[in-house]
Amino acid sequence: MLPGAEIVLAGERAGRTVHDGVGGLGLVATHARAEVRAADVLLVPGGPGARRGVADPALLEWIGAVHATTRWTASVCTGALLLGAAGLLTGKVATTHWSAVRELQSYGAVYTPERVVTHPGDRLVIGAGVSAGIDLALTLAARLASPAHAQAYQLALEYDPRPPYDAGALAKAPAEAKALLGVADGWGGGIAGTGGTPPGRGA
Amino acid sequence: MLPGAEIVLAGERAGRTVHDGVGGLGLVATHARAEVRAADVLLVPGGPGARRGVADPALLEWIGAVHATTRWTASVCTGALLLGAAGLLTGKVATTHWSAVRELQSYGAVYTPERVVTHPGDRLVIGAGVSAGIDLALTLAARLASPAHAQAYQLALEYDPRPPYDAGALAKAPAEAKALLGVADGWGGGIAGTGGTPPGRGA
Repeated sequence: MLPGAEIVLAGERAGRTVHDGVGGLGLVATHARAEVRAADVLLVPGGPGARRGVADPALLEWIGAVHATTRWTASVCTGALLLGAAGLLTGKVATTHWSAVRELQSYGAVYTPERVVTHPGDRLVIGAGVSAGIDLALTLAARLASPAHAQAYQLALEYDPRPPYDAGALAKAPAEAKALLGVADGWGGGIAGTGGTPPGRGA
Repeated sequence: MLPGAEIVLAGERAGRTVHDGVGGLGLVATHARAEVRAADVLLVPGGPGARRGVADPALLEWIGAVHATTRWTASVCTGALLLGAAGLLTGKVATTHWSAVRELQSYGAVYTPERVVTHPGDRLVIGAGVSAGIDLALTLAARLASPAHAQAYQLALEYDPRPPYDAGALAKAPAEAKALLGVADGWGGGIAGTGGTPPGRGA
């Protein structure tokens, strides 16, 4: 953990379990959002809740207000849609989960399939689909502390990835794997103009 | 999620928050261990609690009893110490977090720095430090369902890792990063016979 860092999980109510919407696992909010007015780092996660959150004006207003106080505001996965809906990505190069590209573009962002996008002038760091959160966290640690700190955390996590397959991007996954997610083989990841059939469900 | 899978987080008591021991994040146990007598897959996680658990006979007995019912029993990170203390790794090649190698060896296991070790005959899959859990999960998904399923989950996670540094193994991390974790540069990861100074704290 970064020297002196305090981690707060802000939710609608403190002590309330935030479910991942997929399995049975739940995280406990340590604080109500109303208690959190400022942060050095605001990390906006993705998940099914993010797609609901884009229609929640109070949440979007909170994101904008806390962003005004941060050194860095970050998103992972479909969390980028919340930054977009809060008006923070208009005209900016950004990324998100591959299934949410059209929604990201609908907020005026310019999609790139890069894993981590950094805009130092805007204090924004934006990560792709959920597992990009590790790469984003190390990128952020280097900015907040030092590259040696980022390398120390990488070692602490033993993050020396060896995926047993090479199917982690839309361009690389075989048709059979995409079919299991309801994605047509010709689908362009929701990138405007590429056509094809959108997936039945997103992440 | 695997077709038809039900995820259960077993803890001392259902509804009790299990803290990670590092930051403020907590997970909620969905079931008490006493309620869980059998499982298709038993995944034993690591963390500070794992090092306490090796001295908890009731926990070790539970692991052994559930293991007798599983198709696969898996560990990630220092969870391997619990499998070791439960007597499941004696004489077997295994892995764990690099900081826990000596403890793993104390249970009669033969350490390898591989990321995922699979013993189909013993229904065991053993992962290295925490981030190896993703590689382990995909390996297990291929065994439980099919390689196409594993590739689908890899795509769903957008797991196409691009670590910003190459410091995720003891042999690769620079001295400055190791020093931040309290690890002497010559330390051999706790591998018996390599000498050096053990780290001040483990993961």
